[in-house]
Amino acid sequence: MTHRNPAITGLLAAGLIVPLLCLVASGVDAADWRDRDLDTAAELRDRALRGTRAFEHASSLVTQVGPRLAGSLGDRAAVAWALTYLRSLGFEQVEAQQVTVPRWERGEAIVEITAPWPQPLIGVAIGGSVGTDQRGIEAPVLRVQSLDELEALPRDRVAGNIVFIDERMAPSRDASTYGVAVRKRTQGPSIAASLGAVALVIRSVGTSEDRIAHTGALVYRIDAPRIPAVAISNPDADLLARQFADGQPVGLRLALTARELPPTVSANVIAELPGIERPDEIVLLGAHLDSWDLAQGAEDDAAGVAIVVEAARLISELPQRPARTIQVVLYANEEFGLSGANEYARAIEGSGRQVIVGLEADLGSGAPWAFHGSVADEARPALTIMHGVLEPIGIELLDTPAYGGADLQPLKRTGTPVLQIRHDATKYFDVHHTVNDTLDRVDPAGLDRHVAAYAAVAYLAAVKRGDFGRLPPPAPAVTAR
Amino acid sequence: MTHRNPAITGLLAAGLIVPLLCLVASGVDAADWRDRDLDTAAELRDRALRGTRAFEHASSLVTQVGPRLAGSLGDRAAVAWALTYLRSLGFEQVEAQQVTVPRWERGEAIVEITAPWPQPLIGVAIGGSVGTDQRGIEAPVLRVQSLDELEALPRDRVAGNIVFIDERMAPSRDASTYGVAVRKRTQGPSIAASLGAVALVIRSVGTSEDRIAHTGALVYRIDAPRIPAVAISNPDADLLARQFADGQPVGLRLALTARELPPTVSANVIAELPGIERPDEIVLLGAHLDSWDLAQGAEDDAAGVAIVVEAARLISELPQRPARTIQVVLYANEEFGLSGANEYARAIEGSGRQVIVGLEADLGSGAPWAFHGSVADEARPALTIMHGVLEPIGIELLDTPAYGGADLQPLKRTGTPVLQIRHDATKYFDVHHTVNDTLDRVDPAGLDRHVAAYAAVAYLAAVKRGDFGRLPPPAPAVTAR
Repeated sequence: MTHRNPAITGLLAAGLIVPLLCLVASGVDAADWRDRDLDTAAELRDRALRGTRAFEHASSLVTQVGPRLAGSLGDRAAVAWALTYLRSLGFEQVEAQQVTVPRWERGEAIVEITAPWPQPLIGVAIGGSVGTDQRGIEAPVLRVQSLDELEALPRDRVAGNIVFIDERMAPSRDASTYGVAVRKRTQGPSIAASLGAVALVIRSVGTSEDRIAHTGALVYRIDAPRIPAVAISNPDADLLARQFADGQPVGLRLALTARELPPTVSANVIAELPGIERPDEIVLLGAHLDSWDLAQGAEDDAAGVAIVVEAARLISELPQRPARTIQVVLYANEEFGLSGANEYARAIEGSGRQVIVGLEADLGSGAPWAFHGSVADEARPALTIMHGVLEPIGIELLDTPAYGGADLQPLKRTGTPVLQIRHDATKYFDVHHTVNDTLDRVDPAGLDRHVAAYAAVAYLAAVKRGDFGRLPPPAPAVTAR
Repeated sequence: MTHRNPAITGLLAAGLIVPLLCLVASGVDAADWRDRDLDTAAELRDRALRGTRAFEHASSLVTQVGPRLAGSLGDRAAVAWALTYLRSLGFEQVEAQQVTVPRWERGEAIVEITAPWPQPLIGVAIGGSVGTDQRGIEAPVLRVQSLDELEALPRDRVAGNIVFIDERMAPSRDASTYGVAVRKRTQGPSIAASLGAVALVIRSVGTSEDRIAHTGALVYRIDAPRIPAVAISNPDADLLARQFADGQPVGLRLALTARELPPTVSANVIAELPGIERPDEIVLLGAHLDSWDLAQGAEDDAAGVAIVVEAARLISELPQRPARTIQVVLYANEEFGLSGANEYARAIEGSGRQVIVGLEADLGSGAPWAFHGSVADEARPALTIMHGVLEPIGIELLDTPAYGGADLQPLKRTGTPVLQIRHDATKYFDVHHTVNDTLDRVDPAGLDRHVAAYAAVAYLAAVKRGDFGRLPPPAPAVTAR
């Protein structure tokens, strides 16, 4: 469902975009924005579309740092990179906010079919999985098509088996298929364990047809045994499925050296453009600095880092700073429990400052296609005005509530409104959380279009006379992490 | 360059293919084939185009055996599979011909940038590479764009360095770009070593943009030190190249546990349709049973196995066997020194039998696009007649000499003519010698079209009244292995 302002749509159709847009917009809600605010937002947008430095930022992070799993040496290097790099871009206030993060080491994963026809498979430990002893686990395989099918089975069908959840994820522009598929990874291990399974193997939560498996975090329940959990690639899952074809029993052996280590220290890196009128009111532009360990974290989330950094940098080049503070927050440890986001939300509480609205970029460089928000009801008409600046670049306005992003959830739970630019996720899950998440998958033009959208929206939020109100506690939601 | 029979082309344009083709053909050279021979070849072709069991054969091999590097347990399983499977298809004479094969174990490869910005890379040992000690080799990196550039350097520029040959291979339908690019893999290690390099790293000889590296054999010269050699994926090579961008020294560390083991025994598996008139004259249909260790060897060369087995099986279903023997030869150890092909050629010599012509299928399932041969001059007109059966399915006739395939070279050197169906290799080097060489990359329709072509050509060769003469020793050539 989309919602367009018919007056603006009509003018767009007439090919008369920017000047008339401002007139219409000021007629709709003169209280929030002056004509020149909307003009400035449109100028930021158009400047970004002419080319930005966003790809250069992403390249710097992935070339000079690379993998940066929370708590790893790469994570430390990323924090050091961010502090230096943001200062080099001219941000005056750049700080590290200390965050305690968990530590987990992937180690090696051996996954092999033992019967009927022995073959090695390519698999990766799911993030947070326990390891096995050196001998590994060898057991018959119970193949199910979905987590729902598994949950419906009696314990005596499952106990003693390695469960194989053979569910394929389809691509989707809005990432909705990931939200559904990811449950087998996050909840599958404890559901299988509670039915007596000795290990879990899943077909990767990802859309790549290459022989690469997709990692990501699991969540062990406290009331179930902790069993090892691995993901295998789509072609490996195909092979395992074929071995079931003639009805013989299928066996697997898993050996994982994954292990948890004591927690350690990392940091959110925060850069500000202080507001000239209301510096304690923050418009937050978030992305996460950590990545999974298998690759460079280029799409997830150097792309987001590049977008929000460049959007703020463009705003910093305006002749006059906005009324409110624009804060770029590069979160620690999005991937492994949101400890950076939790720490940020804890620290802002009672600081005398408030995030009046947040935006987060964490879905790669696929082009922006929609805009929406979760704001107080009285602020909803403002979204239509803001959308007027985005519509000329092909961004729809959705009338659905916005999730906002994983790192914004701790703030959102305390009432902070969120705005959201939707990224085209059709190709994102080909590379997300895999070895293929490298710079060559980042679309420079997509980044520029996002910078255009984020800069325009952040600027408008930072100069808006009124705010976006506060939210009631949100309903639970899932998205890409 | 293509060569078409204008009379046939004109008839094809008129939509009058099979009956008129036979009349024309018999008019052109009544000495070699009767009309009904050409009709039978066309019927074989058309039967194959209606669907064959080739994909089923490929699936069986990769599902029940999988990786089958010469001398490995998988190789033994492949020989056992082939003996059983070919008998189950109704071939009466199925034999294993013992072959001594080398043995090499890949082990693990650690490749990491040590300076300026440390990062792990994904690399694989090149087949046959020596290992390192546990500490590995750490050295500065000398980047060159090509093997030619390396060869032109003075020893003092190269000595003590790890050489990085950063040459990208482009795709090509005729596999010609592989023939050029592969030299850095086969000859690069000894050329680098002879200039004092301590190790060699190459951008993969492959066209995949995924984070997978491409293996394949090297050839150590006896007059150069044996240095470790690895291939890194294209995105990893991009990363390494980017680290050179600001002029700082770049360092790498390599640690390989690759090792050579004592030779062991494998086998060529040979199945026959004995000829009813000239059983000691053999039309050879070859493919190789071994594969690299990284994947299932689906395109390389379960596809070829499937094509030649199915082509022979279709011929076996004819009411009457051809005059000559059709022999399916599934070679041992194509990948690692052609010991199966050498043994076959040694054994046939002085056996009282002779291969009058050979065809080999070893370039995947990409559609057939051309036909040619290296035959005695007096037999060249016969190629045009044979091509008449292939032209209706879009196969050109090339007037260039045919290489024939790696496994046919030992026979070819002793004068055996070869015929060659050219496979479209545009996508082949995305998967060849990588973890991505899995069943999902095999095109069932491509297999069927190849079966059509191989069956028709093999049949015509087996019923041809005259033979294809003998060849002088061929000029050296390279192709996909």
